[in-house]
Amino acid sequence: MKKRIISLFCSIVLALPVAAQSWIWYPGDMDIWMGNKINNLRTERGSFYPAFWKAYSHEQTVEYVKTVELAEAEDVELCVDGHFGVKIDNTYLFGMPKHFTMPAGRHTLRIAAHNKMAPPSLWLKGKSFVSDTTWTVTNYAVPAKADTWRETDGTPTFIHPAQCPSSYRLPITPVEPVKTERTGKELFVEWQREGIGYLQLNGLNGNGQVNVYYGESPDEARDKQHSILIDQVVFSSDQVTDLATMDTQPRMGSAYVLKNSRAMRYALVECVGDISIDSVTLLSEMKEVKQRGSFECSDTLLNRIWQVGTYTLHLTDREVMIEGIKRDRWMWSGDAIQSYLMNYYAFFDTPVVKRTIWALRGKDPVEQHINTILDYTFFWFNSIYDYYLYTGDAAFVRQIYGRMKSLMDYVEGRLNQRGMVEGQPGDWVFVDWSPRDMSKDGELAFEQLVYLRSLQTMQQCAELMGLHNDMQHYGDAANRLRSQILPTFWNQNKGALIHHTRNGRQEQELTRYANIFAVLYDLLDEQQRKSVLQHVLLNDSVMEITTPYMRFYELEALCALGLQREVLSEMRSYWGGMLAQGATTFWETYDPKEGYSERLGMYGNRYGKSLCHAWGASPVYLLGKYYLGVQPTKPGYAEWEMRPCLGDLKWMRGDVPTPHGNIHIEMTRKQMTVLATEGQGTIYFQSKGKPRVTGGTLSSLGNEQYKVLVNGSQRVVVKVRFN
Amino acid sequence: MKKRIISLFCSIVLALPVAAQSWIWYPGDMDIWMGNKINNLRTERGSFYPAFWKAYSHEQTVEYVKTVELAEAEDVELCVDGHFGVKIDNTYLFGMPKHFTMPAGRHTLRIAAHNKMAPPSLWLKGKSFVSDTTWTVTNYAVPAKADTWRETDGTPTFIHPAQCPSSYRLPITPVEPVKTERTGKELFVEWQREGIGYLQLNGLNGNGQVNVYYGESPDEARDKQHSILIDQVVFSSDQVTDLATMDTQPRMGSAYVLKNSRAMRYALVECVGDISIDSVTLLSEMKEVKQRGSFECSDTLLNRIWQVGTYTLHLTDREVMIEGIKRDRWMWSGDAIQSYLMNYYAFFDTPVVKRTIWALRGKDPVEQHINTILDYTFFWFNSIYDYYLYTGDAAFVRQIYGRMKSLMDYVEGRLNQRGMVEGQPGDWVFVDWSPRDMSKDGELAFEQLVYLRSLQTMQQCAELMGLHNDMQHYGDAANRLRSQILPTFWNQNKGALIHHTRNGRQEQELTRYANIFAVLYDLLDEQQRKSVLQHVLLNDSVMEITTPYMRFYELEALCALGLQREVLSEMRSYWGGMLAQGATTFWETYDPKEGYSERLGMYGNRYGKSLCHAWGASPVYLLGKYYLGVQPTKPGYAEWEMRPCLGDLKWMRGDVPTPHGNIHIEMTRKQMTVLATEGQGTIYFQSKGKPRVTGGTLSSLGNEQYKVLVNGSQRVVVKVRFN
Repeated sequence: MKKRIISLFCSIVLALPVAAQSWIWYPGDMDIWMGNKINNLRTERGSFYPAFWKAYSHEQTVEYVKTVELAEAEDVELCVDGHFGVKIDNTYLFGMPKHFTMPAGRHTLRIAAHNKMAPPSLWLKGKSFVSDTTWTVTNYAVPAKADTWRETDGTPTFIHPAQCPSSYRLPITPVEPVKTERTGKELFVEWQREGIGYLQLNGLNGNGQVNVYYGESPDEARDKQHSILIDQVVFSSDQVTDLATMDTQPRMGSAYVLKNSRAMRYALVECVGDISIDSVTLLSEMKEVKQRGSFECSDTLLNRIWQVGTYTLHLTDREVMIEGIKRDRWMWSGDAIQSYLMNYYAFFDTPVVKRTIWALRGKDPVEQHINTILDYTFFWFNSIYDYYLYTGDAAFVRQIYGRMKSLMDYVEGRLNQRGMVEGQPGDWVFVDWSPRDMSKDGELAFEQLVYLRSLQTMQQCAELMGLHNDMQHYGDAANRLRSQILPTFWNQNKGALIHHTRNGRQEQELTRYANIFAVLYDLLDEQQRKSVLQHVLLNDSVMEITTPYMRFYELEALCALGLQREVLSEMRSYWGGMLAQGATTFWETYDPKEGYSERLGMYGNRYGKSLCHAWGASPVYLLGKYYLGVQPTKPGYAEWEMRPCLGDLKWMRGDVPTPHGNIHIEMTRKQMTVLATEGQGTIYFQSKGKPRVTGGTLSSLGNEQYKVLVNGSQRVVVKVRFN
Repeated sequence: MKKRIISLFCSIVLALPVAAQSWIWYPGDMDIWMGNKINNLRTERGSFYPAFWKAYSHEQTVEYVKTVELAEAEDVELCVDGHFGVKIDNTYLFGMPKHFTMPAGRHTLRIAAHNKMAPPSLWLKGKSFVSDTTWTVTNYAVPAKADTWRETDGTPTFIHPAQCPSSYRLPITPVEPVKTERTGKELFVEWQREGIGYLQLNGLNGNGQVNVYYGESPDEARDKQHSILIDQVVFSSDQVTDLATMDTQPRMGSAYVLKNSRAMRYALVECVGDISIDSVTLLSEMKEVKQRGSFECSDTLLNRIWQVGTYTLHLTDREVMIEGIKRDRWMWSGDAIQSYLMNYYAFFDTPVVKRTIWALRGKDPVEQHINTILDYTFFWFNSIYDYYLYTGDAAFVRQIYGRMKSLMDYVEGRLNQRGMVEGQPGDWVFVDWSPRDMSKDGELAFEQLVYLRSLQTMQQCAELMGLHNDMQHYGDAANRLRSQILPTFWNQNKGALIHHTRNGRQEQELTRYANIFAVLYDLLDEQQRKSVLQHVLLNDSVMEITTPYMRFYELEALCALGLQREVLSEMRSYWGGMLAQGATTFWETYDPKEGYSERLGMYGNRYGKSLCHAWGASPVYLLGKYYLGVQPTKPGYAEWEMRPCLGDLKWMRGDVPTPHGNIHIEMTRKQMTVLATEGQGTIYFQSKGKPRVTGGTLSSLGNEQYKVLVNGSQRVVVKVRFN
């Protein structure tokens, strides 16, 4: 088993392409602003319901600075999202010019900009200089290097001055329902699969009120008293009034598009008074993402699981990565880190990862954990480790390092006497939604493990930044904690890590969580791993996991222990079970033992459960990482490994995206073909006979294990009978 | 000499009236928001010029909470400045209701509100409960007690739901010019005295461009190339375009009001193209303040100085207290503390003091000094000491104490090895604008003195809060610093405090600043005081002070040393000198030795000097505190003293406002009449003969000194020959 913490520093850093002209802003601000916007979309029964943690604001007044040396004067075109002033050296230009002349010679251009509503972003184009990351921007307290807007990797959406980033909207596509039932003054409609967007009422006629009840299930849409998402709109002869916001607009034509984006697979549209409608259309609002990863195999159920998984992920991969589309529509750090990991195997949509990381973090001072949850703070750190490993984007680490440090200061200020984390007043210790109660007090082994990974992330990032004192500090802290974990939590009788200690003394409770992460973080020796597998992971008497959230890590641990065949069976029964229930997207929780109506409820709410939940899509990650078997071993896939595993499949083929290309694999029981476009790869496999290899360098590792070294864009073919 | 640091704790706290129904918000937020708005009004030659320190934002998402127990259900009327949702216990109300029913019994009402543009403030009216300071409001990180809007003391302006605080505007009054010259296509206009507001163009005819050049002096208004404030507006047949902002609006009628408020006593209005105007009007924008203080005496020049002083103060006492009306229009902490002190003797407009203190401070984290200036951080602390002393408003101290503490943490994190303050990278060490250079490096005695006062303020406020650890900490720090000051800075040869030390060693430079504050803060013994008076204050070879800013303290120190006669002479020559130059408001600096044109320039700018500058109005303070002689000795005038002093005047009369009334005095050489409406007063005076007193209790203090104790609203008449 390789050591799972990969040094991020001693590696070739593959820089992302130098930012071209783009809108620029104070680093993190557009991300935090966009995150706030999304976090304020939630309604419940038509009532505004904002995220219940602190929302940080963008810097409302900033100054952009660039010194240029020009051979000749240049005409400059300028666009600012806000009120602004231009100063060249010590001279102010009148008003808010859209064009001005930058004189020849060496001069400093300063553009002060102010906007309360949105970050005062800047777009500028001269002949020899443009707005890009070479600018600095200050909030007059801390100077920073400007960040740029790049919506999809390598394809800046915002290069035109007319489109300032704060006006960004996801594209819209009309989707007609597959079924419409009319009963009196009600229409009940169903779409082929779940979606999110704006409901358009077609063929409106007369005056009156239209009420809409949305549902992820038919039950929810039909239950007017309890459906979570509802809209009420009044049509008079000349105007339309949204009753939730009391916004009015002129009534025009026979169609009307409702103002709030809503998740729906079903909708009940009720006409009250002298009004009727012909039909409805969903104006689906989804991001354009390139599906760069792929997976196909001999099992059509698994193929469907992969497809529904990527669709679930796509619905939640929006301006930022949200947890689900119906209810919260918030960024949750523990959910997000899984979305990021799936994303690396599906879309490799990296700007949204950065944006979500910034938005989750916000600004200083830190006054609470990310999402108020202790564990979610640690997943936030750990997501930066992953991001850098998959993308090699050191510039992002450099920009966010200050906020990593201040968040870790907060964590370190709340350690207990033994230097461990435990829930303090105001903290939410989450771990998981579990079918039975589990203890959340004292020192949870699980929390120490994710904290340890965070300390290691800090150490690695400090090293990348060249901050030797920080590196030493976090390295020492990580080593100290690491050395405490097994002595504190390992219980020889149980052959596992117990759940927690109280006042430093072991309690008897045993759960899966810490044991899973101890496997994933490589804290156990071979004997302990086997013991954990037997006494915990394969032991039905230990409380089972019913959320796809923790199943993500549980199944990953099983894969890491080589149980790919068993995990395939699990996928077929658990995710296949949801599909058998008619799911078109994967759910927040699923317990095959529950009846239909229980499956819809959660949080004491009849329809509280989200049926399109990002963390439901983990097969996308597992199939890419543990079956196609690809992962980076140096940042940005400068080096990578492939440990392909068919499990019980006859064949599989697929692609794993890398920063500038992809790694393609096709595999049967007799032959494997690999074609990568970048990085140094090592393919590991096991076979009884000696393999015939073309296009790579084969070595035997003994005990039927082999490796093939692949350089750059070599096409490698391995012929052999795979075990 | 009494000890000048008065214990704020061991006193009767006179609470301000319990807040009635009002708009409420997250504490400090409306103040910070309003301050940002004002700080973004500055333009220079038509270019936007924001304040160059960090602007903090309001909390954009908050939740208001109130638990009530109602005998019967109540109809509730609600208004929120923003998007909002209402939840009663666990039930959401649909939409954003303006009316709802609060059920009988004990229930918790939660109103979540969101607004990016302005603080999401709340107004609510039920039968038995209303929006007031008994509510709590949270930004979801830190719960706080709601603050309320009260524009003028005791007279809430914002009690009506239709007027949300963010829409607050100062009232407008038309003022016609006293003189208009027409030269070709130009109008040159002059008003009787300087004002601020919006220029209205009357009798517009034709199409073309109108350029306006404003001036505090005729020279500035006539100098099209250099006047600081300019406007350019284009009139076409159907629309008007402001060239600075490119905002357009339909052209209606024959009058047009320019969009930017400007300071002006003169304006040059230039018509370009086929356009003409008949006349202009200033739509003067000034706050309605009650002039509760008064001063009148036998010297008409002094009366005029007092009147022009209060007018200068009135022009700068606006939404917040700004430093001057032409140029920056920003809040500067060192300027503001003087405005507050003058205000206590003129308008007793206390809400604006609180608002300016909040707005200067902003939020956490602290990343720089207030206004970036080391000394201005200390004046900010010290202004809270003054505010509490004059008003007795302990509730304000309680709300702002957290921000006092985090700012003091910042200061303490930047002390040098000797525990003293000195300029660190990024700090502006200001002290004063001086006619010759002075050293700003090393440990300035002046900075230690204002820092000492800040530590004492922290100690007192911690005591008021009942925070014993803090009290101990700041008390110890203050005592330690106090014990260092004389040994470090007193120079026996010079008979004074020297200007500064470098690396702990005395330099030879001698300035007035530290010596002034050592007198004011009572750090010197009688002999040292005499020495400072002789060797510094009355020594013309020590660099003179040419700003009314430091003259404020210099003259106060002379008054404190009993030199009221000399100070009256100074007032007549210095402020009288400005009046003789035609001033209708007092200036930023004045040096009688300078010629006319030099008097207009500053900061390397021909018209850079502000001719209406708050700190120019200090006689308002000095005449109230050291001639009428009134000041509080317990917070909120629970106790006060009066040390009336005619100087060379034949008679004087006046009023000093107190929280709920005023203290009136009339005095000739033979008789003094005092009538106060609150507090316990002690009147001190000197006379050769034994005074005859009615209405108070006389005691002799020996050496021709007497005191009269006055209780509540006693009318006291003292007849005697005053020295």
